[in-house]
Amino acid sequence: MVKKKVVAAPHPQSLDIVFPGDLMGELKDTVQLESLGDDPVDYDALDGNLEGTFALIGQMDLPEERLKRAPDLKAIFNVEGNFYQNIDYDYCFRNNIHVLNCGAAYSQAVAEMSLGMALDLSRGISREDRRFREGREVYLSDGCRDSVLLSGSEVGVIGFGNLGRAMLKLLAPFHCSIKVFDPWIPGNVILEAGCIPATLEDVLKTTRFIFVFAGVTRENQGFLNREKLEMIRKDSFFFLMSRAAVVDFDALCSLTSQGAFTAATDVFPQEPLAGDHPARRNDHLLLSAHRAGGIPQAFSLIGRMVLDDLGLILRGLPPLRMQKAQWETVKSFASKPAG
Amino acid sequence: MVKKKVVAAPHPQSLDIVFPGDLMGELKDTVQLESLGDDPVDYDALDGNLEGTFALIGQMDLPEERLKRAPDLKAIFNVEGNFYQNIDYDYCFRNNIHVLNCGAAYSQAVAEMSLGMALDLSRGISREDRRFREGREVYLSDGCRDSVLLSGSEVGVIGFGNLGRAMLKLLAPFHCSIKVFDPWIPGNVILEAGCIPATLEDVLKTTRFIFVFAGVTRENQGFLNREKLEMIRKDSFFFLMSRAAVVDFDALCSLTSQGAFTAATDVFPQEPLAGDHPARRNDHLLLSAHRAGGIPQAFSLIGRMVLDDLGLILRGLPPLRMQKAQWETVKSFASKPAG
Amino acid sequence: MVKKKVVAAPHPQSLDIVFPGDLMGELKDTVQLESLGDDPVDYDALDGNLEGTFALIGQMDLPEERLKRAPDLKAIFNVEGNFYQNIDYDYCFRNNIHVLNCGAAYSQAVAEMSLGMALDLSRGISREDRRFREGREVYLSDGCRDSVLLSGSEVGVIGFGNLGRAMLKLLAPFHCSIKVFDPWIPGNVILEAGCIPATLEDVLKTTRFIFVFAGVTRENQGFLNREKLEMIRKDSFFFLMSRAAVVDFDALCSLTSQGAFTAATDVFPQEPLAGDHPARRNDHLLLSAHRAGGIPQAFSLIGRMVLDDLGLILRGLPPLRMQKAQWETVKSFASKPAG
Amino acid sequence: MVKKKVVAAPHPQSLDIVFPGDLMGELKDTVQLESLGDDPVDYDALDGNLEGTFALIGQMDLPEERLKRAPDLKAIFNVEGNFYQNIDYDYCFRNNIHVLNCGAAYSQAVAEMSLGMALDLSRGISREDRRFREGREVYLSDGCRDSVLLSGSEVGVIGFGNLGRAMLKLLAPFHCSIKVFDPWIPGNVILEAGCIPATLEDVLKTTRFIFVFAGVTRENQGFLNREKLEMIRKDSFFFLMSRAAVVDFDALCSLTSQGAFTAATDVFPQEPLAGDHPARRNDHLLLSAHRAGGIPQAFSLIGRMVLDDLGLILRGLPPLRMQKAQWETVKSFASKPAG
Repeated sequence: MVKKKVVAAPHPQSLDIVFPGDLMGELKDTVQLESLGDDPVDYDALDGNLEGTFALIGQMDLPEERLKRAPDLKAIFNVEGNFYQNIDYDYCFRNNIHVLNCGAAYSQAVAEMSLGMALDLSRGISREDRRFREGREVYLSDGCRDSVLLSGSEVGVIGFGNLGRAMLKLLAPFHCSIKVFDPWIPGNVILEAGCIPATLEDVLKTTRFIFVFAGVTRENQGFLNREKLEMIRKDSFFFLMSRAAVVDFDALCSLTSQGAFTAATDVFPQEPLAGDHPARRNDHLLLSAHRAGGIPQAFSLIGRMVLDDLGLILRGLPPLRMQKAQWETVKSFASKPAG
Repeated sequence: MVKKKVVAAPHPQSLDIVFPGDLMGELKDTVQLESLGDDPVDYDALDGNLEGTFALIGQMDLPEERLKRAPDLKAIFNVEGNFYQNIDYDYCFRNNIHVLNCGAAYSQAVAEMSLGMALDLSRGISREDRRFREGREVYLSDGCRDSVLLSGSEVGVIGFGNLGRAMLKLLAPFHCSIKVFDPWIPGNVILEAGCIPATLEDVLKTTRFIFVFAGVTRENQGFLNREKLEMIRKDSFFFLMSRAAVVDFDALCSLTSQGAFTAATDVFPQEPLAGDHPARRNDHLLLSAHRAGGIPQAFSLIGRMVLDDLGLILRGLPPLRMQKAQWETVKSFASKPAG
Repeated sequence: MVKKKVVAAPHPQSLDIVFPGDLMGELKDTVQLESLGDDPVDYDALDGNLEGTFALIGQMDLPEERLKRAPDLKAIFNVEGNFYQNIDYDYCFRNNIHVLNCGAAYSQAVAEMSLGMALDLSRGISREDRRFREGREVYLSDGCRDSVLLSGSEVGVIGFGNLGRAMLKLLAPFHCSIKVFDPWIPGNVILEAGCIPATLEDVLKTTRFIFVFAGVTRENQGFLNREKLEMIRKDSFFFLMSRAAVVDFDALCSLTSQGAFTAATDVFPQEPLAGDHPARRNDHLLLSAHRAGGIPQAFSLIGRMVLDDLGLILRGLPPLRMQKAQWETVKSFASKPAG
Repeated sequence: MVKKKVVAAPHPQSLDIVFPGDLMGELKDTVQLESLGDDPVDYDALDGNLEGTFALIGQMDLPEERLKRAPDLKAIFNVEGNFYQNIDYDYCFRNNIHVLNCGAAYSQAVAEMSLGMALDLSRGISREDRRFREGREVYLSDGCRDSVLLSGSEVGVIGFGNLGRAMLKLLAPFHCSIKVFDPWIPGNVILEAGCIPATLEDVLKTTRFIFVFAGVTRENQGFLNREKLEMIRKDSFFFLMSRAAVVDFDALCSLTSQGAFTAATDVFPQEPLAGDHPARRNDHLLLSAHRAGGIPQAFSLIGRMVLDDLGLILRGLPPLRMQKAQWETVKSFASKPAG
């Protein structure tokens, strides 16, 4: 049987990282792989290869005129993370071309990092390790007067997509009361997951561990503005895990520097953050350089998901591991390609 | 009905911390409380109070001659943590006097700290926060090449008492394979808990997250000696959560300083640790100043447990929240009172 | 704001059963409801109502010519259970009309019934109740020599859709080893759910509790033929929960009547089953008259799901509670409308 | 090393059933086994064997004079189920002789049976199977108008010992609200288990699935009298799983025969029940001939527990699998030996 052709141009992702070791072997066994390399996409080479292509791997620009050159195309595998505004989605929907992204591959990594950060703030792990290195550690109960259990506490979750749900599973043994704000999700779905649907204000004002997992869309940029952040209780912990653009980052920094509450952030409005940014000296802010999702196991999971869904599509079955672009929502995503 | 007399001398613990707010009210409603204060025990005052005493709260020395002065004594509530060699346990067993400790009250706090430390090491949370403050942070996947998921990993648990079991519950959603070494526990008990009974060597050589929860007894001091520590894999994480005396601490420090593996410790052979101890500059060692257990919620849980068990004993029922001294094991505990 | 028009003709389902009490109120508050009654669909009335219709509730025939009369149609809510071959799906896909079914609403009811039947067979609950009524009961251990625990046993699941997954959750505390056969699902998905991907033969030959949840398609009719059924162990239990058409029902009856294994069935090739059918006298067959799914709470859950998804679609968001027809699979379903 | 002597006289239990296959081999490898057979205890033979005996296996009468003949005795393993009033417990407590019972070995079997009965009543499994055999079955939704989900329902648990806790684990995926009545257990223990402490009246009046797991003591005989049973709601299900003596059994039968509520019982005041007892014709009563606990796997678990605890005691460690007699409670148990 003739193998179908799959063209890969995964920039800024790398083919070897997404398909390490055995996964690359499995990919080559499954299809005729045409790799255009990990460099920025060479669109001439791509255009020359589209005839007869069954699937694409990458985040390349795909306007209608390019898609028309690929009449056999059945699937586009985005292996970086988000849907971008560089594909003619309407053309794909009309022609039964699956547009798939791998956002779910990062969920477990982000959830574990979020839990790690939550336990860090609630117990002062990194703060007290710093003090210990400075010779200023305080032993036993005197050193943990402000420590609290996550178990039994009030948790707030802002954004109930893949990340929020992965987090929910990790939180299960802590028996927390969990309030969820997500305007895209019916309250009954939240209730059936064992959580309490809540307004944004209620989450901010009443919960103690507040996790922000909301993606950024055209409508929600900066929705966690200063006024909202001022609702957070002094003894609460705030975790910014998704996109810096959903929050007024300057307000977050200034409020925490004054001890209004304690926070952790994995994302920044500019990366790298300015070398003299006051966040670097903020004792109420745990800093992480956009390290929550992109760990080696997440990347190889992307490869695993691509292989599984590619296998289904080759057999005439619908994909089920990656996330499908949906016409209602795909055009509202505001993220730009990272490359 | 006449209230029974209970004498409290909780040093080095404090009565207000163990019975905050409503708990103190409930204690006073339940019994006639004679508090001797939180200072070191005034044994003259104690001896003068023993006649008619139904229960004692504290870690006081209780040789036979003192116990004989308390013919109505039914229970001794240790509110600090371990059984010490300062009680005539045989006398208590012969006279149906319950000797109870509150070790279990710290379990949840220690388990949460252990999980927090595990996620810290597996993701470099405190290390990368330090780098960020120094302006040396590395973004995105380049910054987490050595990050691993706890999910699906191999875990080792050394010591399967209250701490190990509390940890097990928190680990449930991570679906790890868990090997347990505990020479006091039948293998079937470990199997029924969903874990794999293993030798110490197997745990050290094959698992990636190694948690030490073993208490110290006369027999097991220093059982994690240099030879054993050298069995640990370079990419493994080692967590010393119970007692420094079970490990060769110098070997732990020197091995990790050379990058033999990465570790976190909550306990030290001397506390405070010497100001110039090299552990303070060890980049492969996360430091915590004996802060895992003694958080405010743990102390109030002790009070809650004392009240619950005191209530049962007053009704002629056996206690069930605190841990009962058992004649086979109580004499082998080597811990000394902290005060 | 003008309410959108929704036309309901739910036969053989009933509008009052799907939208009991408050749900009907909520439906009428949300849209302009045009109910054509619960009788067989009056197509003239339907056709006269399609202009301006936003959504349809029912299982009506919808060929292209009828769909063209509904240019504003955005969603078709099947409230009975399966996708049937009476809709021009291609037209719907081309025009972004969601075709949704409510199969998931029955999952919990079927899973509970399946578990109830499993415990019935493993413990002889209904068989021994019958004996008791006949005065032939046997007490204590003599009466349960063939009883086995579900806990720790080997379980087989044939069909890993909504039913299989709902069952998996109920089985969690039994700590079974679970083998899954589903040719439509990648093995990794099964592994990540904590189960073992297996061939049909392996499931039949090696597991003790075998649950059939597979839907019937054009390809799989009768795939559990006599040869396959003969692979089942004598001490195994077989549960037919989905469709009678996937099994050679005569072989199932004759094999169990000879004690080849023990079974329970909720479905029959003809319903009602012939009055003199030998299954009615079969002591190794537990009989249920297609009662696993259609309980009152399942029907009101359908209404709840319709309301939630209708609300999302009205807001321009994708539905997420009901199951969407997918072009790859929708044409292979072989079930006929029940009415 | 010389093996310790263990004397076994397990009547009415049988040694081969408790130690099937490998377990018997392991027992003989561990100790010098002196079996007196499974017949009623031959006390002359027993007395002649007590000198030098380390442990006893059985439910034999052990007054002080007999115990004094066994100066090396360290443990008495009851392998039938309950503590009886045929042992001088005070002598055992004074002499550090463990008196252990195996009640916990039946917990999983009883919990599974209880869940099976709950699903039987909530879905009419055995009732509708009977109808089907009579040719009176009703198909589809018409046949399950009175069916309800266990999921999300209100559950009551009367008696929070081993049985109640085993049941709790099986109920976890059903996400029920669970009220517990147990006057021997502090409310905080019930709260920490995720349940609601409640009065008996509250449990009977407000919950829908009511499980009776309470053992019988001198004080609680017949506490579920007619007045209490009349509090149960018409649409509730009542499960008598522990001892018939805790309930007014005649009232239970007459109330259910009138449809006051629906019940299942595994126990009877006299076993066997009279042949003409009206319970045998009661359509609202599911009947089980004391078959919930004594299944083969429960018996071999007893053997496993004896071996594990015997191993610990031989090593000078406290037993931890079987239940220890406690001086406060052991004398209040009212059960008589079954033999």
